[in-house]
Amino acid sequence: MKMLFLLSILAVPSVWTYILPQRNCLLRRAVDLTRVLDTESVAATKPFVPGNLSEITLPGNITYRINDFCVGEHTGTHLDAPFHFNKDGWTVEEIPLERLISNGIFMNFSQETANNVSFRLQPDHIDQWIKQHGRFPHNAMVLISYGWSQLYWNRTAFTGTATDKFTDMVYPGMSAETATKLASMPEVVGVGVDTISIDASGEGIAHQILTAKNIYLLEDVDMDKPCIPDRGFKVFSMPIKLVNGTGTPARVIIVPEGGILK
Amino acid sequence: MKMLFLLSILAVPSVWTYILPQRNCLLRRAVDLTRVLDTESVAATKPFVPGNLSEITLPGNITYRINDFCVGEHTGTHLDAPFHFNKDGWTVEEIPLERLISNGIFMNFSQETANNVSFRLQPDHIDQWIKQHGRFPHNAMVLISYGWSQLYWNRTAFTGTATDKFTDMVYPGMSAETATKLASMPEVVGVGVDTISIDASGEGIAHQILTAKNIYLLEDVDMDKPCIPDRGFKVFSMPIKLVNGTGTPARVIIVPEGGILK
Repeated sequence: MKMLFLLSILAVPSVWTYILPQRNCLLRRAVDLTRVLDTESVAATKPFVPGNLSEITLPGNITYRINDFCVGEHTGTHLDAPFHFNKDGWTVEEIPLERLISNGIFMNFSQETANNVSFRLQPDHIDQWIKQHGRFPHNAMVLISYGWSQLYWNRTAFTGTATDKFTDMVYPGMSAETATKLASMPEVVGVGVDTISIDASGEGIAHQILTAKNIYLLEDVDMDKPCIPDRGFKVFSMPIKLVNGTGTPARVIIVPEGGILK
Repeated sequence: MKMLFLLSILAVPSVWTYILPQRNCLLRRAVDLTRVLDTESVAATKPFVPGNLSEITLPGNITYRINDFCVGEHTGTHLDAPFHFNKDGWTVEEIPLERLISNGIFMNFSQETANNVSFRLQPDHIDQWIKQHGRFPHNAMVLISYGWSQLYWNRTAFTGTATDKFTDMVYPGMSAETATKLASMPEVVGVGVDTISIDASGEGIAHQILTAKNIYLLEDVDMDKPCIPDRGFKVFSMPIKLVNGTGTPARVIIVPEGGILK
């Protein structure tokens, strides 16, 4: 009888997907989704500028090296604080740590964007994912790949323009309706993308809708990795603790749900 | 017989401490050991300097805020890459992710430094800790509190001088022998302190010895927290991924060994 019950669960996909996370791969160790930060990093405003490396010698002939740098808050793999588009929202250092360690889900729309740079993620895409993989977990970070990670080091391809003008840029993103849908889900604490912006092509509406609910954003995330499961992993979104920050470069890693094994 | 064996284990402290982590408290959730980064942050060289917050309005009357900043690599809670004192050592972005997620151990010498700012951590202190709490785990991050966290926002008390001159500074730290001992333990991947430097009073020898083994360092860590267990927790040392960095502000958090529960 027990076996019959078990088999009946196994035979019904919708129950199965709800009970056990689907995985297109098994995450065994932490994976870094962070781009290196250097003078070639994609920057929304100010690029990364290193200082001059100093060598200093202490008594005892001990030499050390030290440097400084300047950088725009939205350069390379970075976090947008809600304050970026919501003047009453959290600044970087105000985002609760509990929200920066989130339950990841991963959606891949690389095929949809392959011949359509104007692709707009629609609410139906979210519904379809949920139907296939189950409801979002609480404290959810929604990672969305548009297949743009591979273009990152080709600036013109990545942003769709050879200029630095934000309003000239062309790349896929989500519709206002999709942002509204995600913002209406209380379990969503963050949304991350592999493009320069959570919005499509220099728009700002998705930013505005999501940050109005104190949802933080990750941009320029490197999702060109052999294994990002559909769900069942933790995301550590680790910005430096910048007071009054609208955003900041951050370390973003994913970790198996059961923790680091070794 | 089984019960007798179990009781015999329970009765022998040295076996017990090796098998089960000792805890002076039970870590139930992630704890942030990171100082906020602002113009008051303790800086080894260049302080934190924010740019001017810009407000930009997009079509559709959508307004956003954006800024930039300049900062010394060794400002606030930060990571020292081995390259800082070892020209052949890893720069910030080269430190393997596997080493940045480490097994934490915590040593508290607040009592020893209370009336002795010249306190030097000796190899015996390490031996004593191991005798009491068991051998270090593999991939170990050795967090050492000198009770200095409470002084952080009082610059003169924290560094022992009203000047910015590094060689004028006075604060506790470790002896060269202790650095040599830690550097000789292959399981040690990092060492962190709640003072401005892993060395005592503007010295550099401990830096040199530890970084020679590609051990990375954490400084200005906030250890004034109600619960940091003696062992049995993970440390996430999360620097931004700075190319050629000798160090960088970092997010440093500790997490229960079994992972985040919720």
